[in-house]
Amino acid sequence: MTHIALLSQTSKLEYLGPLLQAALPAAHCSVWPDPACLDAEVAVCWNTPPGLYEQMPRLRLVHSIAAGVDNILPGSSGTGLPVCRVVDEGLTRGMVEYVMWAVLHFHRGFDLALRQQRSHRWSRPPLRPAGECRVGIMGLGALGRSVAARLLAEGYRVGGWARGAHAIDGVATHAGPTGLQDFLASTDILVNLLPLTDDTRGILGQALFSRLPQGACVVGCGRGEHLVAEDLIAALQSGHLRGAVLDVFPQEPLDAASPLWDMPQIVVTPHMATMASPAAVVRQVAENIRRLQGGQPLLNLVDAARGY
Amino acid sequence: MTHIALLSQTSKLEYLGPLLQAALPAAHCSVWPDPACLDAEVAVCWNTPPGLYEQMPRLRLVHSIAAGVDNILPGSSGTGLPVCRVVDEGLTRGMVEYVMWAVLHFHRGFDLALRQQRSHRWSRPPLRPAGECRVGIMGLGALGRSVAARLLAEGYRVGGWARGAHAIDGVATHAGPTGLQDFLASTDILVNLLPLTDDTRGILGQALFSRLPQGACVVGCGRGEHLVAEDLIAALQSGHLRGAVLDVFPQEPLDAASPLWDMPQIVVTPHMATMASPAAVVRQVAENIRRLQGGQPLLNLVDAARGY
Ligand SMILES: NC(=O)c1ccc[n+]([C@@H]2O[C@H](COP(=O)([O-])OP(=O)(O)OC[C@H]3O[C@@H](n4cnc5c(N)ncnc54)[C@H](OP(=O)(O)O)[C@@H]3O)[C@@H](O)[C@H]2O)c1
Ligand SMILES: NC(=O)c1ccc[n+]([C@@H]2O[C@H](COP(=O)([O-])OP(=O)(O)OC[C@H]3O[C@@H](n4cnc5c(N)ncnc54)[C@H](OP(=O)(O)O)[C@@H]3O)[C@@H](O)[C@H]2O)c1
Repeated sequence: MTHIALLSQTSKLEYLGPLLQAALPAAHCSVWPDPACLDAEVAVCWNTPPGLYEQMPRLRLVHSIAAGVDNILPGSSGTGLPVCRVVDEGLTRGMVEYVMWAVLHFHRGFDLALRQQRSHRWSRPPLRPAGECRVGIMGLGALGRSVAARLLAEGYRVGGWARGAHAIDGVATHAGPTGLQDFLASTDILVNLLPLTDDTRGILGQALFSRLPQGACVVGCGRGEHLVAEDLIAALQSGHLRGAVLDVFPQEPLDAASPLWDMPQIVVTPHMATMASPAAVVRQVAENIRRLQGGQPLLNLVDAARGY
Repeated sequence: MTHIALLSQTSKLEYLGPLLQAALPAAHCSVWPDPACLDAEVAVCWNTPPGLYEQMPRLRLVHSIAAGVDNILPGSSGTGLPVCRVVDEGLTRGMVEYVMWAVLHFHRGFDLALRQQRSHRWSRPPLRPAGECRVGIMGLGALGRSVAARLLAEGYRVGGWARGAHAIDGVATHAGPTGLQDFLASTDILVNLLPLTDDTRGILGQALFSRLPQGACVVGCGRGEHLVAEDLIAALQSGHLRGAVLDVFPQEPLDAASPLWDMPQIVVTPHMATMASPAAVVRQVAENIRRLQGGQPLLNLVDAARGY
């Protein structure tokens, strides 16, 4: 008899209750702020209310309903608790589609066409083969690797940057802080697919932008806190950067007063790049609960200390 | 010693002269309006000035510099003259990229995001798998077939419509006027890749739009004369259609006074979807001139009477 707590301070997770109970007949669910949650063994979370895990003495597993774990990680007192996330083919496919649109948007000059349309101007952008367009992917995890594979198949020149060394056929990979400069210098379209950690917070800022070639573009689909919005605006206004497609923002929904909305070089999308389907979430959470009970290795376990 | 005339009333084709002469050392080129053109055996054309072929007694081959031949076809007096066009992998790749962007634009709700951005609105569009999005391709020629193959590989449900019957694995094909209604009824995103002929002129009009499902989208990358602009505007304004991405217009550049520019549901692009590279044009024209001289079958020969 597993007790599952559905914990979020921003999203309604009730809908998962009946689905999880159908998948795990011997489980039952409580939904925060029901205080019964504090008795649960498993926490299924998105933006967990702060300080909650510490009040859950029976807690044995923290499970994100998404690929990201930055907003569900236990603090240092919770070190040792296993933390899992959801990654599946539907999730990666959605991100690949989003990035594909954004890369084509810049590579094929749709951004220029849309800006010209506003002033009724007709001017054909240069037509360059994909092989002359260098796409650099920050983060070579589940999503970054799928995106890289797909862009390679399209004929783009693909570079990648991660914390450790990666060998991916056809991709020019770079590692760690020392590899960043070369990676950026050979990137026309930068795609951010890093997780949010203390090391990556604010990474899309002035120092990084200044190392990209003149006219480079940025696709932001990691986390909003990666971006220093003022620095992006300055780099676009100076003409150093050409454009940006942004899906994530430190505060979501993006404040109606944010200057990002009205920048002609920026496409703002409402955190829509991808999402695990409820079926995928339930399947993976249920499987991990079975594994926890059976003492088997958990799927999509993250390194909570490392932050991803 | 072949004499090649470069004929256009809208484009500068001079740049092809030295390239063709380098590829065919025994050839020489004249550029319209040089009257020497009238002596040429081969016409290399884009928007041929009307009535010119009739004044060229030695003419043995009419060659388009592009995939389309509608603006270079000899009139009925020229029947019998072989007419060729240029099709190559770079050309199809460019069109596949363009259509891919446009399909993702609607499938993934980037059109809605861009419209919301104008009013600083944040609302996540539904995330549907590609398999639930039906893309219907009008024209299953060199371009339509490449586009179909690529959309299939992406997981879309793909339908196709052509004059004759086609069997393409995984594609629901429909033929001729009697097949049109079923094709349209099962299309969420309509991609026009028909050639411009008397049969297809004005085909993107009220009757066709009314047979598309409510909320369907149109991608126009065949020829401008396929579209009845007033009918598209009416179908968008009534809400029957959701949006359109248009690359081609009856008059190009599109008139600055055209109402199409300001429709929030329409993306106007400046005939940029694709183009054969000069290298591809020269390679194919030179090869066909060699074949003409050697009495071998010509490449990419069109049926001038049929119009494509
Ligand atoms: N916009 C959306 O709709 C949406 C949806 C889903 C996910 N996301 C975001 O996408 C991000 C990527 O997801 P994922 O599943 O691919 O992540 P992941 O599998 O955890 O991979 C993370 C990658 O980032 C690299 N990395 C981590 N810290 C780094 C650092 N300090 N310097 C350099 N590289 C570093 C890692 O390097 P190593 O490989 O060397 O460890 C790894 O390659 C998630 O964090 C999430 O925030 C967004
Ligand atoms: N926007 C741009 O940048 C750009 C660039 C290049 C080309 N284009 C346009 O793209 C068009 C398509 O090029 P393509 O090379 O793929 O043409 P294509 O190889 O000649 O193929 C034409 C297709 O249209 C079908 N078709 C012709 N008349 C028809 C009718 N009355 N009813 C139904 N189907 C009909 C044909 O049917 P069958 O197979 O049964 O004969 C064939 O499948 C060109 O005409 C050109 O105008 C645009």
